[in-house]
Amino acid sequence: MRPDGRTKILDAALSVIRTKGFEATRVEDVCAAAGVSKGAFFHHFDSKEALAIAAADHWSAVTGGFFETADFHALADPVDRILAYLDLRIALVEGGELPFSCLAGTLAQETFATRPAVAEACGRSIRGHAGSLVADIAAARAAHAPDADWTAESLALHTQAVIQGAFVVAKAGGGAASAVENLRHLKRYVAMLFGRIGPTGGGKP
Amino acid sequence: MRPDGRTKILDAALSVIRTKGFEATRVEDVCAAAGVSKGAFFHHFDSKEALAIAAADHWSAVTGGFFETADFHALADPVDRILAYLDLRIALVEGGELPFSCLAGTLAQETFATRPAVAEACGRSIRGHAGSLVADIAAARAAHAPDADWTAESLALHTQAVIQGAFVVAKAGGGAASAVENLRHLKRYVAMLFGRIGPTGGGKP
Repeated sequence: MRPDGRTKILDAALSVIRTKGFEATRVEDVCAAAGVSKGAFFHHFDSKEALAIAAADHWSAVTGGFFETADFHALADPVDRILAYLDLRIALVEGGELPFSCLAGTLAQETFATRPAVAEACGRSIRGHAGSLVADIAAARAAHAPDADWTAESLALHTQAVIQGAFVVAKAGGGAASAVENLRHLKRYVAMLFGRIGPTGGGKP
Repeated sequence: MRPDGRTKILDAALSVIRTKGFEATRVEDVCAAAGVSKGAFFHHFDSKEALAIAAADHWSAVTGGFFETADFHALADPVDRILAYLDLRIALVEGGELPFSCLAGTLAQETFATRPAVAEACGRSIRGHAGSLVADIAAARAAHAPDADWTAESLALHTQAVIQGAFVVAKAGGGAASAVENLRHLKRYVAMLFGRIGPTGGGKP
């Protein structure tokens, strides 16, 4: 099935905004990347801000579909599922097309003070993805750290915060190698919380 | 001593760029915030890009001076110094003026693909601050985790990545409370790496 006009514009918006940021992206850039006219654009979106909100929701749908069908869900142990999810995030950085870039994180940085509706759409995207990890983390917590002073929701959101921060440092000249190193610290933390490795960092997670 | 014209412009740039982002910031906005004319601006800076690079270096100098003179350096134990540094970062989020905003992180998100000289200046700022933590982390590692499979440099940069990510999530609707929660996860990780708390998260770091 060929994508419809609206989807073509949204796919183009993901690519252009992830590369240039929101403010530097012109409606003309998105139209050129999508191969549509400005008339077609404004048939679907009232403004660049409306596009950005729809793009954040589109980002959630695209990435959500990818992670929902990933292999790690088939693992029997919840700790294994969480660690395999983190391995997948590492593999995406090592082999991805835009390896250290999140539409929602980039948009939120630029818009939090000036365009709250866009920042809120970014928050829905980030919290929604974090939410997809909560059941596994809650199961792992119940089995291995029932008295922990953190909640499953808090650790799920923390995984996303570290991923966002790894991307920022990668963009500030650290590159993919620094992003991988930061995600390995995150995996080590999670492995320690669930007793998979000892407290002094001995053994690879 | 009253700040000179160049410093007034740089101070204004920090405030305006941290709030609006780089692309949305106009030279006029910075001039208005600094109380200088456009003529005065272009006497000091050739372009908005030149301003952003100088602003990143100014940010390093201002924040570097603050952290260099902070109380935690007086603690005898390197693990205590690192944990107290993280407590200070938490206190800054809880009580700061722009509590979850880093000039370098914001600029890097926007400019990494389009203005490499700006992104590189951001990297100097982030890596420079991380570097100020390396001696303490190396001493703590030697004392408590000499066989760890991570370097002091890597953990120092990781602290900055988590801080950056905590700010992104805060901006995406999580607010200061979510930033504090993420910094507490970071502190718990560091405390576990140095054996201050057990592997299952028991006990507050």
